[in-house]
Order: sequence, then C-alpha cells, then structure tokens
Amino acid sequence: MDSNKKTIIVFSGDLDKAMASLIIANGAAAMGNEVTMFFTFWGLNILRRPEKVRARKTFLEALFGWMMPRGAGKLGLSKMNFGGMGAYMMKIIMKQKNVSTIHELLESARDLGVRLIACTMSMDVMGLKEEELIDGLEYAGVATYLGAADEAGVNLFI
Amino acid sequence: MDSNKKTIIVFSGDLDKAMASLIIANGAAAMGNEVTMFFTFWGLNILRRPEKVRARKTFLEALFGWMMPRGAGKLGLSKMNFGGMGAYMMKIIMKQKNVSTIHELLESARDLGVRLIACTMSMDVMGLKEEELIDGLEYAGVATYLGAADEAGVNLFI
Amino acid sequence: MDSNKKTIIVFSGDLDKAMASLIIANGAAAMGNEVTMFFTFWGLNILRRPEKVRARKTFLEALFGWMMPRGAGKLGLSKMNFGGMGAYMMKIIMKQKNVSTIHELLESARDLGVRLIACTMSMDVMGLKEEELIDGLEYAGVATYLGAADEAGVNLFI
Repeated sequence: MDSNKKTIIVFSGDLDKAMASLIIANGAAAMGNEVTMFFTFWGLNILRRPEKVRARKTFLEALFGWMMPRGAGKLGLSKMNFGGMGAYMMKIIMKQKNVSTIHELLESARDLGVRLIACTMSMDVMGLKEEELIDGLEYAGVATYLGAADEAGVNLFI
Repeated sequence: MDSNKKTIIVFSGDLDKAMASLIIANGAAAMGNEVTMFFTFWGLNILRRPEKVRARKTFLEALFGWMMPRGAGKLGLSKMNFGGMGAYMMKIIMKQKNVSTIHELLESARDLGVRLIACTMSMDVMGLKEEELIDGLEYAGVATYLGAADEAGVNLFI
Repeated sequence: MDSNKKTIIVFSGDLDKAMASLIIANGAAAMGNEVTMFFTFWGLNILRRPEKVRARKTFLEALFGWMMPRGAGKLGLSKMNFGGMGAYMMKIIMKQKNVSTIHELLESARDLGVRLIACTMSMDVMGLKEEELIDGLEYAGVATYLGAADEAGVNLFI
C-alpha cells in the first residue's frame, strides 16, 4: 500500500457529492498523488455528454436514459434540491465565491492525470453506451477497481 | 495492515447501494481476500428474513419494524424509486442482463466466506431480534468492526 | 500509514449518519486512536450552535442558513424522517435504550481528543461563519484532510 495512491468510488450522481469527490481527487492529484476515480451507477451521469447522442437502446434502457440527468450540468443536490432550485442557487453562490464549477473540476482532473474509469457493468445495467460519455475515460469493471484499491492507502466510497 | 483484508460498513438499506457493497465484497472474496461486512442501521434490513417472524417488541419497535422493508427482496432504490417502480424496473433490467440478484449475491458472499456481521447496537435501537435475521451472521459491535478495519487495507462506508 | 490513525469525512448532515460517524470516532478514540473528523458541506450543520447568531450575510447566504438545520439537535433522518417525526421517534427509542445522544457523543469526542475540523471552503459556500459554530473546532481545507488521510490506516466518507 502506498499513501500516494488513492481511489474514489463515485456511486452518487448528486452535484454536491460529485463536487466533493472531484475536489478531493484534484487536491490529491495536485499534491502528486496517483488518483483513480471509479464511476459507477448514478455516478455515471456525471460523465454523460450534455448533448443528445443517438444510440441503439431497448425500451427500458431508453426510459432510464431519459429520466437520468444528462451530464454534470444537470445534476441535482442530495438535499434541498427543490426540483433544481437548490442546485441552481448553489451554482450561483459558488460562482460568487470563485469556486471551480464541476466542469472545470472534471477538466482539471483529466489534466492532472486522474484515472477516470466508467464501470462497464453499471453502463450495461443502465443502458449507457460509450458514445454517450465524455472523452478520456477508461472502461473497466470491479476487478480493475480492486486492483487499484489494493495498492492505495486511501480508498473512499462517495 | 494487509491489502488482502477489506471491510465494508453497510449503513444504507437501498437496493442499489446494497448491490454495490455485495458486488465489491464478492469480487474481493473471489480474489482470495478476507472480507468483513458490518451491517448497521438501515443496512440491517438487507439481512431481514422475508417472512413475518413473531418477536416480543415494544410498540415503537413494532412500528419501526413494520415500516422498514422486510429483507433484501423489498429494498427500494436510493434515487428514482417512485414507490417501488424504480426498484422493480431495475430488477427486470438486471435479469435481462444476467446480473446476479441481491439474494444470489448474499448467498455467494456467504459461500465465499465473507464475514457478515450484524451490528448489535443498531439491532437494539431498531428493535430487530436475532430470529428476524437470516442465518449465518455474526453478532457484534463497533469494537469488532474497528478490530477488523485496523488490519484491513481497504475500508469503505456505504 | 498507521492503523492507529483514522479519518472520517462527515459530508452528510443526517442524524443517523452523524450518529454513526461519532460512534465510530468515539470507539476508535477510546481505544487510543488518533481520530480526525473533517466536517464538510451538510455535515457542517452538526456543528452549528443551536441559538441564533448575528452574522453579516448576503441574501443567499442568509436564505441557506435559514433553511438548514441549526445544530445537532435539529437534524433529520436520511430515511423515514416524515418531517421530523422519524428523528423524534428515533431519539425517544435511543433514550429508552440508553444510547448516548448526539450532543453527548460530540462532547465525548472532544474530551477524547478527536480533531474536529470544519471545512473552510464549504463554510464559505454555505455562508457559515466561525461564530455560528460550536467551540473547540479547527478550521482548515482539503489539504489538511489529505495530510491526515495520508498517515491514517482507516479513512471513511460518511
């Protein structure tokens, strides 16, 4: 185990938790750590492209895809979201305070060399296709996560 | 600390998070790891027997027991549950995709030697009795969890 | 890394999760561990003083402050809260079972030397001022958390 290696499972697709995971990841990567983020289940929504992407889907897959937020710009808060009002207010405040947006944090994570892994099993269950997700991702399953976690000194589930 | 040892606190009783915790646990156990799952608070609902079990309870204990889902088959999703519709759809999709059910994952965890610990303090607070929970569990408190976590290289809270 | 050192990020402001984080922290501290709790985002509400504190705030800051629970006594449950009924029932049951209250757990954590860190970046975003939070806190950011996590053998995100 190496305390310079860190992994984060991003299970949640809430804006606030996504921000927290990316702030930790960017902080660690900026300090020279090797960081692996494993996006699974609702967390995959953070990685969706904002534009509509044509993809062959079954009816249930299409329904799920339609109900889930398309990309980091559409996420809600885990508390006090009030149909999007809370997330909207939070973004205004963050802008006033010069906190990076979630898009900037994602970009910065990529620039800092954070490994962004999309969980293929969750993609299959939720009917998400590679062409619907942003660029620069790895595609892998739980075994890859476990391999990274085995070597890391800090492992979080968010 | 030993990266071949892992612990997971299962605090959540949501179907999606329960699945995630069991998929990680089974994956690690299949790779020869010693895995300890510590079920506490809402996570105890995953371990409830599906059938009604007679147990002496106070009024509040009975009320809580009646309101909480009875077993892994009754869990809802953490998001988009829509009164059970979401969990139902998710199970149909998972069946189509040949993903193991939560019952199969629990069984497989037991077969692979994953330690399944029910938190006795939470059981006391929620009024759950041993006869209401499935077979093959250990009963212990936070000190036992901490002992396992001290030796483990990966520790998650789900 | 040292298994006698532990860190907990307290992101959630739910009563049940706050209790879980403090029970783990107190248990570990009682066994002689060095425990760091890093309160961020909704978790900061656990640290708010119960009384109204005058502080200069922008309109949005004041609105957020007014909508969020003021202190550990006002927290709700993550599930089955029913507008506060669930949290109320839970407290009655915990009293009957002689479980420590969240106030006692916070006090005991301080007495046992647990480091309680309030995340300054989250405070800024949520408009919380130092005078609104309880005594005995450290004020720091993600770099301080990462420094503690690097040395610790157990790191949880709750």
